Amino acid sequence: MLRRGKPTTHVIYGEAMGVLCGDALLNYAFETALLSFEKTSDTKTLSKRITAALSVLAKKAGIYGMIGGQVCDVEAEKKGLSLSEEQLSFIIDNKTGALIESAMMIGGILAGASESEIKDLEIIAKSVGKAFQIQDDILDVIGDEATLGKPIGSDEKNEKPTYVVLHGLEASKEMVKTLSDEANEKLHGFSKDTAFLEELINSLIYRNK
Amino acid sequence: MLRRGKPTTHVIYGEAMGVLCGDALLNYAFETALLSFEKTSDTKTLSKRITAALSVLAKKAGIYGMIGGQVCDVEAEKKGLSLSEEQLSFIIDNKTGALIESAMMIGGILAGASESEIKDLEIIAKSVGKAFQIQDDILDVIGDEATLGKPIGSDEKNEKPTYVVLHGLEASKEMVKTLSDEANEKLHGFSKDTAFLEELINSLIYRNK
Repeated sequence: MLRRGKPTTHVIYGEAMGVLCGDALLNYAFETALLSFEKTSDTKTLSKRITAALSVLAKKAGIYGMIGGQVCDVEAEKKGLSLSEEQLSFIIDNKTGALIESAMMIGGILAGASESEIKDLEIIAKSVGKAFQIQDDILDVIGDEATLGKPIGSDEKNEKPTYVVLHGLEASKEMVKTLSDEANEKLHGFSKDTAFLEELINSLIYRNK
Repeated sequence: MLRRGKPTTHVIYGEAMGVLCGDALLNYAFETALLSFEKTSDTKTLSKRITAALSVLAKKAGIYGMIGGQVCDVEAEKKGLSLSEEQLSFIIDNKTGALIESAMMIGGILAGASESEIKDLEIIAKSVGKAFQIQDDILDVIGDEATLGKPIGSDEKNEKPTYVVLHGLEASKEMVKTLSDEANEKLHGFSKDTAFLEELINSLIYRNK
């Protein structure tokens, strides 16, 4: 999904090294996050936050998140299944949404957000993830190959089930707008300065590459 | 290395699912280990031990451990390199040894072993890992296919550099004995009941399948 133009790792370094790279980076995320225990002055509050953040990272990356979503996507593609809206939504929420949820929730957790704020951040991130994925599918149809840096029309060619395939271009654009409006509205509910986050979300969603 | 007789995951479920399974299990190790924070009554001592154990797990699994060793092994095999003893040793120590070190060190850490005891456990586990790998290479030459559950002679056929290839069968058997004697001797230095651990180590090293 995030490949843009350049040949991917496995093309340059071979399958095995591509797989090991993925393993190494997944593991390195935990190695890096665990360093934060050494960097705190070890107050109970901070340790609790780090622990909660690590648990969110682990859960959202694993079988109940990114990897689980990827497994369903691979299986569906292999079997050439035509997906229901519910199934497609499950894949997007997990494969794409879970790590965005993780990033936003961890920010909140480490900054000391309340439980209900963290829950709100999760909901916002889920909308962002879904809007991001639908925009990706839209760009696969109407994007500019030069700007995008990859060939368009590959989803249709590969008979990949997407929102655009299920609902058409206009309804998909509408969905992106609804989702990003929902996210921004919920974000406004926070009593903090959310300008940067809002800009980031809009740039993630309304991109042309 | 640990395959015995049955077809492997990727043969039955395909490459992609095999890779995702590996990712999922690696991630699940962290998910599971992180649950221990919830299961303690959250004393400072226990939290510190869990944190130390997690850091060992992450480091020994990653680029400075198992994955790093696997990368070197794959690269060496791809390029058909003839390895020096030092290079072969590096690969074994990381690919095979690091996770055995991790398992033994984590046991010690959670039980409250001192720093020097944990260091000793690491040294013991390194010997066990190396002996385990050399025994694996020996069995590839002299093992019984029916007991082993896989064809023998595959290392020679694949021109895989091993201790047996470098030093011959007798010197390799001698090396396994030296390494396991070293491990057991160091283990005797502990003032705890080490009978089970000793039996486990011997069964790992002196196996015929």
